[in-house]
Amino acid sequence: MDDSLLFQMLHMEMAHALCAEQEKGLGALEGVGFRVGQGLSERLTKETPSFKDELDVLKFLCKDLWITVFKKQVDNLRTNHQGTYMLQDNNFLLLSQLSNGKQYLEEAPKFLAFTCGLVKGALSNLGFDSTVTAEVPVMPSRFPPMPYRI
Amino acid sequence: MDDSLLFQMLHMEMAHALCAEQEKGLGALEGVGFRVGQGLSERLTKETPSFKDELDVLKFLCKDLWITVFKKQVDNLRTNHQGTYMLQDNNFLLLSQLSNGKQYLEEAPKFLAFTCGLVKGALSNLGFDSTVTAEVPVMPSRFPPMPYRI
Repeated sequence: MDDSLLFQMLHMEMAHALCAEQEKGLGALEGVGFRVGQGLSERLTKETPSFKDELDVLKFLCKDLWITVFKKQVDNLRTNHQGTYMLQDNNFLLLSQLSNGKQYLEEAPKFLAFTCGLVKGALSNLGFDSTVTAEVPVMPSRFPPMPYRI
Repeated sequence: MDDSLLFQMLHMEMAHALCAEQEKGLGALEGVGFRVGQGLSERLTKETPSFKDELDVLKFLCKDLWITVFKKQVDNLRTNHQGTYMLQDNNFLLLSQLSNGKQYLEEAPKFLAFTCGLVKGALSNLGFDSTVTAEVPVMPSRFPPMPYRI
């Protein structure tokens, strides 16, 4: 069995449970992500020499952290060179169990709060305060789109 | 990095978050476990021929399910042959991050509720209603005890 399935299942059920009975559900989910991010960053950088610069830290997020949690690298990293970075994942693991469709798009924040906290917590452990937000323009397809033929 | 560390961290932070702000924290945690147990049991038994008897189902719990989630088999299985079974795990993964000591023993229910639900959910998926409880006589030691020498 895919070893990350247990993580995915636990994440999804935790998101439902925390959001079902709490007003502050999204905040609590983000808090869980924050502490997991801090812990993971601590473990993953234990034997790493310190980072040269901000971009080096971002590369750690996009590669080491992302692979550990989401089993793939970030697909695209952009920056405005003024301290704002955009990480793009075209097949985000924690949304891949949901079907695509507009009604699921509305549910998406529940499945992103943990990850926002995770990134924030990892950065915090490395000495950076940050604001992290997420957006989902389209839900990831489970399979690559088929080529269209007549 | 140990692949189950992410699961352990997420489980611990979820337990804190669900129990911190909710009266019904333990019930919610058990509910999360129940649904994960249902899902895992469904996946794990997909290609398994149906079970011969109750003992066969218990063996599935102690081996397949336990290894998938806790990375080891149950150490001991006992029964009174009247439908009551006792599964003993001498080095339970979800307690292994906690130090041993009486004060932690009191915290233990928070770290057992998910697993009670997990077993109940797995059994439910296989057609069995059950009551599942857990007890911790002593906290697992992180290392085997040293031999005593003068």
